[in-house]
Amino acid sequence: MEGESSATPCTGPKLVAHPRAKSKVWKYFGFDTDANGFILRWKRIYCRVCMSQIAYSGNTSNLSYHLEKNHPLEFNEFVKSNTDQMREAFATAIPRIKKEPSGLHSKPPSQDPNSRQGSESDNRRHSDLTVAVITFICEGLYPVSLVEEPTFRSLMSTVDPGYSLPSQREVAVKMLPQMYCRTRDMVFSELVGVVNCGVSTDLWHCQTQNRTYISLSMHSVNYDCTIGFSMINRCLKTFEVQGDNTAKNITRAMHEAFVEWGITHKVTGATTNGSVDVVKACSLLELSVEMPCLGHAINRAVDEAFQLPQVDSFFACCRKLVDHFKEPTLYLLKEKQKQHGLTQCALITDRTRSWLATLAMLERLKEQQIAITATLRESSSSHNFTFDGPQWSLLDGLIKVLQPFKVVTNMITHCSYPTISMVRPLLHMLLDTTLKVKEGDLKDISKTKEVISKVLSTTYSRNTQLSQEISTFLNIATFLDPRYKKLPFLSLHEHSKVESNIIEECKAILEKQIAEQPCLDDYSWVCDEPPNKKPAPLRKHTGSSIQDNPLAAIFCQSDTEQNQEELHAQVLEELGNYKCQRVLGLNEDPLLWWSTHAPLFPTLSKVLQKYWCVPATSVPCHRMFNSSGTALFGKRNRLAPALVDQQIFLYENSRCYYEREACEAD
Amino acid sequence: MEGESSATPCTGPKLVAHPRAKSKVWKYFGFDTDANGFILRWKRIYCRVCMSQIAYSGNTSNLSYHLEKNHPLEFNEFVKSNTDQMREAFATAIPRIKKEPSGLHSKPPSQDPNSRQGSESDNRRHSDLTVAVITFICEGLYPVSLVEEPTFRSLMSTVDPGYSLPSQREVAVKMLPQMYCRTRDMVFSELVGVVNCGVSTDLWHCQTQNRTYISLSMHSVNYDCTIGFSMINRCLKTFEVQGDNTAKNITRAMHEAFVEWGITHKVTGATTNGSVDVVKACSLLELSVEMPCLGHAINRAVDEAFQLPQVDSFFACCRKLVDHFKEPTLYLLKEKQKQHGLTQCALITDRTRSWLATLAMLERLKEQQIAITATLRESSSSHNFTFDGPQWSLLDGLIKVLQPFKVVTNMITHCSYPTISMVRPLLHMLLDTTLKVKEGDLKDISKTKEVISKVLSTTYSRNTQLSQEISTFLNIATFLDPRYKKLPFLSLHEHSKVESNIIEECKAILEKQIAEQPCLDDYSWVCDEPPNKKPAPLRKHTGSSIQDNPLAAIFCQSDTEQNQEELHAQVLEELGNYKCQRVLGLNEDPLLWWSTHAPLFPTLSKVLQKYWCVPATSVPCHRMFNSSGTALFGKRNRLAPALVDQQIFLYENSRCYYEREACEAD
Repeated sequence: MEGESSATPCTGPKLVAHPRAKSKVWKYFGFDTDANGFILRWKRIYCRVCMSQIAYSGNTSNLSYHLEKNHPLEFNEFVKSNTDQMREAFATAIPRIKKEPSGLHSKPPSQDPNSRQGSESDNRRHSDLTVAVITFICEGLYPVSLVEEPTFRSLMSTVDPGYSLPSQREVAVKMLPQMYCRTRDMVFSELVGVVNCGVSTDLWHCQTQNRTYISLSMHSVNYDCTIGFSMINRCLKTFEVQGDNTAKNITRAMHEAFVEWGITHKVTGATTNGSVDVVKACSLLELSVEMPCLGHAINRAVDEAFQLPQVDSFFACCRKLVDHFKEPTLYLLKEKQKQHGLTQCALITDRTRSWLATLAMLERLKEQQIAITATLRESSSSHNFTFDGPQWSLLDGLIKVLQPFKVVTNMITHCSYPTISMVRPLLHMLLDTTLKVKEGDLKDISKTKEVISKVLSTTYSRNTQLSQEISTFLNIATFLDPRYKKLPFLSLHEHSKVESNIIEECKAILEKQIAEQPCLDDYSWVCDEPPNKKPAPLRKHTGSSIQDNPLAAIFCQSDTEQNQEELHAQVLEELGNYKCQRVLGLNEDPLLWWSTHAPLFPTLSKVLQKYWCVPATSVPCHRMFNSSGTALFGKRNRLAPALVDQQIFLYENSRCYYEREACEAD
Repeated sequence: MEGESSATPCTGPKLVAHPRAKSKVWKYFGFDTDANGFILRWKRIYCRVCMSQIAYSGNTSNLSYHLEKNHPLEFNEFVKSNTDQMREAFATAIPRIKKEPSGLHSKPPSQDPNSRQGSESDNRRHSDLTVAVITFICEGLYPVSLVEEPTFRSLMSTVDPGYSLPSQREVAVKMLPQMYCRTRDMVFSELVGVVNCGVSTDLWHCQTQNRTYISLSMHSVNYDCTIGFSMINRCLKTFEVQGDNTAKNITRAMHEAFVEWGITHKVTGATTNGSVDVVKACSLLELSVEMPCLGHAINRAVDEAFQLPQVDSFFACCRKLVDHFKEPTLYLLKEKQKQHGLTQCALITDRTRSWLATLAMLERLKEQQIAITATLRESSSSHNFTFDGPQWSLLDGLIKVLQPFKVVTNMITHCSYPTISMVRPLLHMLLDTTLKVKEGDLKDISKTKEVISKVLSTTYSRNTQLSQEISTFLNIATFLDPRYKKLPFLSLHEHSKVESNIIEECKAILEKQIAEQPCLDDYSWVCDEPPNKKPAPLRKHTGSSIQDNPLAAIFCQSDTEQNQEELHAQVLEELGNYKCQRVLGLNEDPLLWWSTHAPLFPTLSKVLQKYWCVPATSVPCHRMFNSSGTALFGKRNRLAPALVDQQIFLYENSRCYYEREACEAD
């Protein structure tokens, strides 16, 4: 791919593709390099066609978007080459499918005596289209019955009258499973190199089928000498949650998935929505930590506060106020908006009843307060309607409580690196600042704060035993973040406890390493490149053929106590060194820092991988906090139970983790 | 269209297209005619290409399916001609849309300097594809965001690299509304000729948006001299049901729809699911009858019986039994099935909890009873599992109670003519035979029968006043069905009451007719063809220019009493004549009979139109009782609130009423 220099202008920067590039789109983009050919910036790439700079965050969807928008010729070439690649994979499979006597309306064009004899290009076009349709179904999460919908058949007929769609059966029984196997193999080979991973459980309900499913995903922070750390997020399995013996069934299904994917001994923790059965399953599986999902915790806490009678009736009152501003009162409101120089917009209500929608309603009311009160004063129909000082104060207070939660959801939603290290600082901020009852707080506000506080803190400390575990886990994850490593919210005693925990973790890792591969290069675990590409080893006492040396028995089997001391000293040195490093700014990317500093902290890097692979939320944030989830909900509701595992797998793993569903605006 | 004789073989029958043919598909099909050119059979058509006979029930979807399956060349020609027609409609609209500066990635191919200069055929192809995409969205009920889904864009890119999709905004703001306006105009012109219509309310909930909607449809039985009676079913409006003042809001929305569609004085009755607010709205609108939906009534009645503790726990026991037959017990079961010569199949459970699914579970258990008991006897894991004699008897009894309900749902689901006349006989059969508690019935069975009976009968007699209204309405509708006109389930007294009701109806119709158009041909109302096409008038005392005759004032303004007597005699004659006609077989088509006999019964035909336009169910049956409804549910859940009215309207009115959604099999 790097060889494609024909498109590179002679005088521009020397561009190289992503070293682990899989997408053909990299033909048109590259990173800038220094004189030695080392990539200068990982967060920026250049378009080889127009040389414009594009932000890069690990996924290629904005690259293909750039092509489509600006370079249609190259975009078509790219789509074609993608299709070619897919066609090759189908090349052996599809003719075999076609040869078998199939049910309804699916015959290759060559079998129709009236049409031109199926030439090479006809066949090629036919399988191009089939690949495109199957890809549309898989990556768009459409039900396979689509191919037999009259409207879709009519669309494809217009598009290409000579093309005959495969039958639903062919898609369900052959093509989809083939696609699934191919993708599974790819994911499987990715997982082989994973040392530690976290898992998450997304519990969802298919209303049309009245079935409840769990989609199990794995997450890991992988290291590669060339590009540093990167996140892997893969959906492994979707299984139905049975009504009887729920926890036991979930345990079995999860265990089977672990075995199937070869990660049984790699899973360090699970992030769940806290449902009793899932939590019990995690404990039966003896996972070392069962992390509550931050998104669910926030939703649950705020929802509970919203059920306080005073708060609930206040929102009903707000909704009535919004409803009141319909024609003809809306006209009056617009006049007032003009008079007071406010944005001309309608009020909004919180129909979906998510707290974010409620907050949006409150914020809009507050923004239009002057216009609203002026209208209420003048409008004749508003005489029996009171929304006065006390109401506006309560509205104000509620906005102040809720806004920080919106900020938090935005922070974690738009984050391109692991967010587990942010959980502890965010919880501290919320509990100690936002939710602290202040003097002068309205009664309803302090009650609201208390309820939210209570739910949030009990979620992260279900019982004393667990609480300790989760708290220790979060503290370590936070300490490993170069932005937060000072842990200002901990007491000196707690702080030193975190450090001693880390020291224990490091020592355990080093001991395990020695036990498994005595006297091997400390750094070898972290890098899966062949040894000749490795940077110089940090420590001197290693050798490549040391086990053949007859002196090994004497020099490598040193005294255990002395070994322990050495280990301790080594860990302390590494830890001290880490603490001395510059504290990152709050908006800097901690994973990028670790990518460049991993060689300096070989043991801490490993601890990082173990802790940061556990996600902060059990469902991708963009689904929990905006319309992307709604769009997915609608799509999942149309799937057949027999295909749901394969279809969700393909959908999740063939899309970028943070790519959003196109969704209808209200 | 009939001129297309090139495809007609010389020696075959002389074919003519449907006289009111709208679809271009009629180019390839026709009805056989007699020597005078009159159509011989309305229920059979011939394919002009292969001369095979095809059943015809009023919709053309099986015709295009025949073409697609057997005559690909003709099918492509047909699709193309359809597209041409659509393109003409879009021809003026789309260039205008395209010219305006649009947002994202939608530029006509001619604007791209790199591509070939936009020739005529390029533009034509471009608008063909756009029409096909819009049609796919409208008729397939896809959200308009589809055009911005990366997966759909990629599909269309493969299909035609030169094509650029319109943006979501363009579709939502311009193309969809244009399509809506065109279809609305067509529906509007259809409604102008309607004399009486029924309406139905489909109450549904969009979970993703947390909104409840009502889709209001109209139904009528129209008459045309050439083809006789046919049903019209059109969706008029979908509106949101607000939480406050629900009944009042529904009333207002329905009233507005009536006015908008010009049917305020045509609505004779409404069929609803019986929800309190909708019923109240119907009464506020002073509709003459508010008919309970038979489908909802059956579902509600059976569901209530299923909640009896004994029944509920028995089903739980059945589900456990089904669950028990998993590997390895399933293997044993299969062995036993082989031994006993039973169908080799797995047991099924009723996950969706519809009573039809539960019945299927029971029927499968019963079918496999021998194999199941044999397996339970031998399998070691079944020792603590009892499913013995008493259980099998209860299972048997429940099947006997439920099976007739399945027969009923099948009858009304597959009916191509109005089913209102079947409601009374079906209810009688269910209440008097199926649900009659017999000696020897198990206690749980008689309890089940009682509960179902009670719900069914109270549904059709909400209070004494209403009960009388509904019962009279149903009796008249049944009497007008030449299969059921003997009304064997009524007492002599009741029977004569129905007849006197009918006589009143007929007289009212005749009086109204005389008041509106004195001395006009009795038969003119029923036929919307010009007078020269009409068959000879039945009665002699009419004349075309009678009002110009100076004697009219004397001869037409006869004495009221005498008039009344004449009317009465005329009605009695017509009624007597109707009663003398042959009683149709139970499987004959009553609407077809009426189509050929309408000229003999001009007044009764009008009563028929008034009564039979009220549907038996408020939702098309195929949606209530099979997966078609599930498929639609999934699709509706994805719509944007702002477009839901237009999208549902286009979906319902551009598809045949009985066309099913392609759906996933389990």
